[in-house]
Amino acid sequence: MPDRPKTPTLDRVASPADLKALGDDDLSSLADELRAETISAVSETGGHLGAGLGVVELTVAIHAVFDTPRDKLIWDVGHQCYPHKILTGRRDRIRTLRQKDGLSGFTKRSESSHDPFGAAHSSTSISAALGFAVARDLGAPEGVGDAIAVIGDGAMSAGMAYEAMNNAGHLGKRLFVILNDNEMSIAPPTGAMSSYLSRLYAGAPFQELKAAAKGAVSFLPPRFQEGARRAKEMIKGMTFGGTLFEELGLSYVGPIDGHDMESLLPVLRAVKARADGPVLIHVVTRKGKGYAPAEDAADKGHGVSKFDVVTGEQKKAPSNAPSYTSVFGGTLVDLAARDERIVGVTAAMPDGTGLTKMLERFPARTFDVGIAEQHGVTFCAALAAAGMRPFCAIYSTFLQRGYDQVVHDVALQGLPVRFPIDRAGLVGADGATHAGAYDIAYLANLPGFTVMAAADEAELMHMTVTAAAHDEGPISFRFPRGEGVGVELPERGEILPIGKGRIVREGSGVAILSLGTRLSHAEAACEALAARGIAPTLADARFAKPLDRELILDLAARHDALITVEEGAVGGFGSHVAQLLAEEGVFDGGLRFRMMTLPDRIIDQASPADMYALAGLSADDIERQVLDVLDVASLRGRA
Amino acid sequence: MPDRPKTPTLDRVASPADLKALGDDDLSSLADELRAETISAVSETGGHLGAGLGVVELTVAIHAVFDTPRDKLIWDVGHQCYPHKILTGRRDRIRTLRQKDGLSGFTKRSESSHDPFGAAHSSTSISAALGFAVARDLGAPEGVGDAIAVIGDGAMSAGMAYEAMNNAGHLGKRLFVILNDNEMSIAPPTGAMSSYLSRLYAGAPFQELKAAAKGAVSFLPPRFQEGARRAKEMIKGMTFGGTLFEELGLSYVGPIDGHDMESLLPVLRAVKARADGPVLIHVVTRKGKGYAPAEDAADKGHGVSKFDVVTGEQKKAPSNAPSYTSVFGGTLVDLAARDERIVGVTAAMPDGTGLTKMLERFPARTFDVGIAEQHGVTFCAALAAAGMRPFCAIYSTFLQRGYDQVVHDVALQGLPVRFPIDRAGLVGADGATHAGAYDIAYLANLPGFTVMAAADEAELMHMTVTAAAHDEGPISFRFPRGEGVGVELPERGEILPIGKGRIVREGSGVAILSLGTRLSHAEAACEALAARGIAPTLADARFAKPLDRELILDLAARHDALITVEEGAVGGFGSHVAQLLAEEGVFDGGLRFRMMTLPDRIIDQASPADMYALAGLSADDIERQVLDVLDVASLRGRA
Repeated sequence: MPDRPKTPTLDRVASPADLKALGDDDLSSLADELRAETISAVSETGGHLGAGLGVVELTVAIHAVFDTPRDKLIWDVGHQCYPHKILTGRRDRIRTLRQKDGLSGFTKRSESSHDPFGAAHSSTSISAALGFAVARDLGAPEGVGDAIAVIGDGAMSAGMAYEAMNNAGHLGKRLFVILNDNEMSIAPPTGAMSSYLSRLYAGAPFQELKAAAKGAVSFLPPRFQEGARRAKEMIKGMTFGGTLFEELGLSYVGPIDGHDMESLLPVLRAVKARADGPVLIHVVTRKGKGYAPAEDAADKGHGVSKFDVVTGEQKKAPSNAPSYTSVFGGTLVDLAARDERIVGVTAAMPDGTGLTKMLERFPARTFDVGIAEQHGVTFCAALAAAGMRPFCAIYSTFLQRGYDQVVHDVALQGLPVRFPIDRAGLVGADGATHAGAYDIAYLANLPGFTVMAAADEAELMHMTVTAAAHDEGPISFRFPRGEGVGVELPERGEILPIGKGRIVREGSGVAILSLGTRLSHAEAACEALAARGIAPTLADARFAKPLDRELILDLAARHDALITVEEGAVGGFGSHVAQLLAEEGVFDGGLRFRMMTLPDRIIDQASPADMYALAGLSADDIERQVLDVLDVASLRGRA
Repeated sequence: MPDRPKTPTLDRVASPADLKALGDDDLSSLADELRAETISAVSETGGHLGAGLGVVELTVAIHAVFDTPRDKLIWDVGHQCYPHKILTGRRDRIRTLRQKDGLSGFTKRSESSHDPFGAAHSSTSISAALGFAVARDLGAPEGVGDAIAVIGDGAMSAGMAYEAMNNAGHLGKRLFVILNDNEMSIAPPTGAMSSYLSRLYAGAPFQELKAAAKGAVSFLPPRFQEGARRAKEMIKGMTFGGTLFEELGLSYVGPIDGHDMESLLPVLRAVKARADGPVLIHVVTRKGKGYAPAEDAADKGHGVSKFDVVTGEQKKAPSNAPSYTSVFGGTLVDLAARDERIVGVTAAMPDGTGLTKMLERFPARTFDVGIAEQHGVTFCAALAAAGMRPFCAIYSTFLQRGYDQVVHDVALQGLPVRFPIDRAGLVGADGATHAGAYDIAYLANLPGFTVMAAADEAELMHMTVTAAAHDEGPISFRFPRGEGVGVELPERGEILPIGKGRIVREGSGVAILSLGTRLSHAEAACEALAARGIAPTLADARFAKPLDRELILDLAARHDALITVEEGAVGGFGSHVAQLLAEEGVFDGGLRFRMMTLPDRIIDQASPADMYALAGLSADDIERQVLDVLDVASLRGRA
């Protein structure tokens, strides 16, 4: 590992207040050092590299001009916030990023007063900034100065950002929206807004802007100053006179070279001095800027493992089993090759959801709708209504964005949309904001929905094939982030009988009924229990809905105790089993029934194994639950 | 009641195909008759009157020009679809609108092939139309022609509509979006988009348009024909050269007088003949058009009761108790008068959510964010972060739109946003799409959330006050549509102890644990059971979270049977009680436990009482459940 970078200017910065003492030249040096420090830190921790490198100058400029924490700075998504964390008193912990007990990879209120509003999901920042601006004008008890949202061009494809601009333009409150336009969120840009932004800066010479910015005192508010109008026209150099943002009521300034402190500082100073309403500042940056391995990477260093700073080579752990994501993606491509009705839909996550292969092989049948889960779900509902077989591939945590559409457009109409749900359960370094905790609960109570969870990667193949064949109504199947358990994969998946589970291990006394990938941990628990002469029956439910009533009632009848295990919050699988047992009067005669679910608390980032241990869902926990429930039994037997 | 209107032309129309035989003059007559028929029908049934009257000419014109059901016509929200239903083979049932076993008040796939995609929630139509257009171009098995979305200006404030346009503009598929701009959705218009639309037609003389439309062969596609550009410029007569819609990749045509068949028909014919991409047709209409009592009403006859056709006077049933909505609204105003931190937020439903009084008394602290639940929730989260006390008043069914924001921005950050949730449970004439079935489940499993349900209108006062005082984290309280049960109202509400229920009636043998307004029905059941010498204990849980562990475990210990009752789907209150009982080992020794929830099926519109009877949650059903659970007990006792 190379030595840490020399950072004489950065070393003098303990908090943003220290930036106020620096001249503009020092701020430029500070930016260079901050970039080096960011690269050095992420080389040790892994994480989101490119996003942070793209906003190094912007971060310095914002902190030089505005005064956090009184001014509320909100980084959209938050994966570009590492330089911000370094400047706001967290440099000493920056090499704990995304580790257990370390700094979050996103902004987080509990970490610092300089993070006034946490993030991780996209496109929330303008709404939050507007909330702060309104609270300020209502005399908020907490004391609020300016509100600044920094939002990427990708995040602008989300309806939520539009809703917020629509409201902000209407209310007319002083508010700053910095559009960080890097033409690259996670996936290549998509959508008309992206094309629009490209057109906006296609003909805009930054040099002229710099000149204009230096005389920027006259260019705001734009609608009331003729000089401002002329300056802006010059800056934009565009053929159309109004911009989409101005039509929504935001003053537009830009585009600005986001790596040029000589542009950034005067423009931010000018807007701060003069704005009397919502202003959108269009800043153009380059993701991964200043670190060649990131700039050259296809994803511009979106999410990286630990790496060698000199070569940029990432140090990924060797993997023995394929990832669930790739198993799903490969199975879908095989299916699509034989069935022209299959369509893949992703909301700006083709890589993460496994649709990249589908996009390569069948581009005409694969749709990246942008960060637009609401639209994506209903788009799929109509595809299904027209007889297609859409796979709506959205992470568990992001499907929350399209929940109403799942209820109203898919479930109530009984339309056969397929939902492959990646990132089910706890996800590791991305932490609590990305946990797939609620999908079993929020899908299994919808009439007509079929809800599956894969126990391993072979099961995932079967479930993908089962979903493709299921035209009777909506169907979902969930699977976790990361590698499978290493089971042998079949040539092709098989269509599973709907609503049927399977006995994995026959035993007696206590039955464990698992849904999803806790199965291998339950097996480990059974192995450990065997040493004590305890042999639970172990079943894989496969379906949270419809329940395998026969299997469950049989397990309840043949055992003294029944334990459900799932990687989800209360309200899901175990609750449905409880409802069945109650309805059938099984509890009347006594059944030692237990539900193992994710606990009712927030679990911060760590390795998935550590997170599940914190959640009380490790193999040890399952073993302990079996012992507990049997101990009670033996005690009562003795009484 | 006056005679039904004379409708000689309409009488010749059994399906849209019959319109093809009519000349343009006949189509105008048809529109007049259709308007009269719509007024006559709604006078008998009640329902959404103004919306349908506003689109009578548009409905006729679309059906004259396009060919449903092969062409897919999607009415956004769907409450303007009554004239469409009359023209598409449902005239014989139009006087059963919104009644039990009658026609739905919205479009519905199961009703007619002319309803290719059902609606009721706003802003889904462009996504659905795009799905059909894409399916068509992929050779959809079902056979799809053109896709036409008709969407109101209010619905355009939703992010989902923007997401869909962003995607449609990117894909460039042939697609028609008819923007029905009546400056009035349910509430007065709000948001920058609304102002933008007003500016769009402020300077646009319809007469010129008509002339242009007659020569419309040359005006599409606009980007490639100079003549088209000139015609459009003339039509728009605006100072800015591009429109927001064109910047998103949709060709813009309009504005058009939506009550003038001589404009509508040629424009629709022209776009149908020439469009090779997505086109937005801006039509200006007047809600309630052609029926003075509706045109003159403040809400333009949005939702009406049965009425006298001549006078327009509505025949509302006399009510004895105030509505839950008004009790909440009044309590909130009282609180706001004493606490400047209280802020009210509604998503385009100030009337429906009870915020109208707040808007009148404290306009600076009351925000209508538009149909923008996602934004609204996060906006409230930031208000709370700044120390304000926001009440985010959204119906149960619409809060589904902001679910991710509730999870990610509110719950994970533990911010004290107050959620007054109107329309909890089954709602009557609006039917399944508006049922508040899932909120208990989808909120109670979020860490740190406090979840209440009011049993009557006095309880609602207490819960409103409790929520205002609760700064420790997010808190919700649900209440149904309609009138309270008539209990005496206190001068002021009291702050309830968090997580504590109350015993309403002491008994023995069986305990009924109710959450929400089933309480009065449970009381009726207890009254009926008293005649048989059965005296259940009855408790009002008040809180689904945190549970009153002490109360619940005590009830379980003191009774042979415990029955939970709630107006929500499985996964909610009963599931949390089951989790507690399992965790505490209460089932081990036997407990006759039953969970009464909304059933796992869709319940169509009827009176709320009828819907609850269909759901198995009437007083009779509760009585029957008690008898069942006790019968089993006595049988076992005899064995």
